[in-house]
Amino acid sequence: MKNAIVGQSGGPTAVINSSLYGVISKALTSENEIGTLYGMINGIEGFLQGDIISLNELFGTSELELIKSTPGSYLGSCRYKLPESFDDEIYKKAFETFEKYNIGYFFYIGGNDSMDTVNKLTKYAQSINSDIKFIGIPKTIDNDLVQTDHTPGFGSAAKYVASTLREICIDACVYGNTKAVTIVEVMGRHSGWLTGASALARNFEGDNPMFIYLPENAFSIDKFISDMKTALQTTNAVIVCISEGIHDENGKFICEYLHQATQDKFGHKMLTGAAKYLELTVKEKLGVKVRSIELNLSQRCAAGYISATDSQEAMYAGLYGVQAALEGESGKMVCFEREDQNGYVVNCVTKATELICNKEKTVPANYISENKHDVTQEFIDYCKPLIQGEILMPIKDGLPIFAIRK
Amino acid sequence: MKNAIVGQSGGPTAVINSSLYGVISKALTSENEIGTLYGMINGIEGFLQGDIISLNELFGTSELELIKSTPGSYLGSCRYKLPESFDDEIYKKAFETFEKYNIGYFFYIGGNDSMDTVNKLTKYAQSINSDIKFIGIPKTIDNDLVQTDHTPGFGSAAKYVASTLREICIDACVYGNTKAVTIVEVMGRHSGWLTGASALARNFEGDNPMFIYLPENAFSIDKFISDMKTALQTTNAVIVCISEGIHDENGKFICEYLHQATQDKFGHKMLTGAAKYLELTVKEKLGVKVRSIELNLSQRCAAGYISATDSQEAMYAGLYGVQAALEGESGKMVCFEREDQNGYVVNCVTKATELICNKEKTVPANYISENKHDVTQEFIDYCKPLIQGEILMPIKDGLPIFAIRK
Repeated sequence: MKNAIVGQSGGPTAVINSSLYGVISKALTSENEIGTLYGMINGIEGFLQGDIISLNELFGTSELELIKSTPGSYLGSCRYKLPESFDDEIYKKAFETFEKYNIGYFFYIGGNDSMDTVNKLTKYAQSINSDIKFIGIPKTIDNDLVQTDHTPGFGSAAKYVASTLREICIDACVYGNTKAVTIVEVMGRHSGWLTGASALARNFEGDNPMFIYLPENAFSIDKFISDMKTALQTTNAVIVCISEGIHDENGKFICEYLHQATQDKFGHKMLTGAAKYLELTVKEKLGVKVRSIELNLSQRCAAGYISATDSQEAMYAGLYGVQAALEGESGKMVCFEREDQNGYVVNCVTKATELICNKEKTVPANYISENKHDVTQEFIDYCKPLIQGEILMPIKDGLPIFAIRK
Repeated sequence: MKNAIVGQSGGPTAVINSSLYGVISKALTSENEIGTLYGMINGIEGFLQGDIISLNELFGTSELELIKSTPGSYLGSCRYKLPESFDDEIYKKAFETFEKYNIGYFFYIGGNDSMDTVNKLTKYAQSINSDIKFIGIPKTIDNDLVQTDHTPGFGSAAKYVASTLREICIDACVYGNTKAVTIVEVMGRHSGWLTGASALARNFEGDNPMFIYLPENAFSIDKFISDMKTALQTTNAVIVCISEGIHDENGKFICEYLHQATQDKFGHKMLTGAAKYLELTVKEKLGVKVRSIELNLSQRCAAGYISATDSQEAMYAGLYGVQAALEGESGKMVCFEREDQNGYVVNCVTKATELICNKEKTVPANYISENKHDVTQEFIDYCKPLIQGEILMPIKDGLPIFAIRK
């Protein structure tokens, strides 16, 4: 009987540990097929340094139940890309370690780069006739993986963004007759999925956030200022959402304008964002009250906004991945397919990581409004099911409690 | 029979509308003493412009129930200070309006400046022998009002800060062996109550956030860098909380250092904060990975983190204020007194607004650790009861629903 190993990689999401829970639950109840389930500490990087623990002891513990609703990566993470050349010593070392631990199944929970790791290990395994099965389990708040309807992690991040925007819109409107612009910067360097989700915050047509700018289209600062000017003629509080990665028609990021405009004694560019630059520009050009808000880390770790749908799907993706490996699949990522019918039904399938790694899925044209500063109803219809449902957070002494690896 | 009027003023909190709910519920069930309950739209500023509505229609509606858990100021807010001189026409105008609406009771939910409004109106009323009763109901996330054990709004903001810090600490620790500093900026210009509440996030002694700097003590940038250097020798991920108002021994705000170090084409100082300056300094001096996070508006409007204790106390403060006015009190603010016994028991009393307005309560010395970069156990014991309990948020389609004034 073979053993299995699981790791997490890249930026965490609020439900990346739900997927880990799925892998652990399925692996530890497959006692006829899997002996020990190991965990890589800090992904493939820690694995290569021999940082490996047994996860069997977690079975049936309250700690395992707690993992489900714990943000961050329970096993630790890394940002590590395997070398292109299979002649690199690293591959030999990795497979020696697999042999040492009698590994038959390898599960890697991550995004683009992590699928590249799964793909390379699969290829190398083929080249040396190893029969270890390599399976990728998707996660990213960016929702930018191809070949899957959506990715685990996106739904909860979208629920956080939409809920927080609804709160910010309420707060930003309390000073009735003061003209004010609030600019909220949402994560997303190349794809605007998460920024677009802010549209869910609206209570009625024309409600705030009135403007949503995605990085899929070139951003014009002049047009933005004129958009604000027009909106302020009929509305006092205008709330705007932008992706951190908005850029001009030459591909220059708007945050780079700030770096350029700013000379500081530190001798390096100021690492501050697009929203701050637009805040200063609105202040200069329009003279109204203006505030910028970076939603920052909470987008990927706010446990209070976990979508039950997202959490369950993340868990199921983990479980399905183990099942696929046991059935002999390798070099595959678990993908979601949405059934084309009434209601929201999602099925798991597997697709070759080769088709997925190093690719990015951006928001398609029919999800972006013609005026380029909003999303369409199709986008909203796509997103809405993903944020549904709440989970019961374990609370002690007024605060959420999380699983922390000893 | 007289009528009553209620208004909200200053920055909102997550439970300022709980106090409004308390006022509305008590006033509308005091049908033998109060005829109509009016609401000032945008506080005293809107009132002076005649922006007044009847709130009687809210009685028994689901909208009223929704107000309890709605952030922002349901009636709108203002930042408006009444003139010092009673000869100003404004006072005459205000009391003519009171007469027009047959007002006998005036309730104002707010902080420092709002208590100044209550105080001035009370004084003016005495000078013209008016028998209108003026009562202040406290609110502020800053917890900086004197004469009261704490203020409604602080507990929920503290719960938000502590919960979010716990999440950020989990997230910031996922990259095991990378040295990294995370600097979180918390609201509080002159008092560090809310920043101190981040200590509640710790799971054990020595846990993150490892450093907490309040504006009550002078902040030394050199000492900070040396604190970080020392900590990074034994810990990989160091998380720090600072108040936005930290300043050096000469009283110069740390954020001003950034403004000074930065020349930008806008011709005005960059309105960015202390955490950003410290991020750039850590990067320059220590060369480690560093991130700054401004918690920003969510501190005062995150409905998902409302403390049930805070919400109930806020409601009761509103109710108690109406009761006090009906019993003939005026020129008073509702204050909390904590019983000195086992368990947490709070009673309402009233105290003269004259003793309260324009004063600020900072964190006392015995709540700050000797090394000046932490709070003491006494501080934690003081804060802990205020964040207890959760409320059931009304949710629809996966998002919180809020009351919005038509």
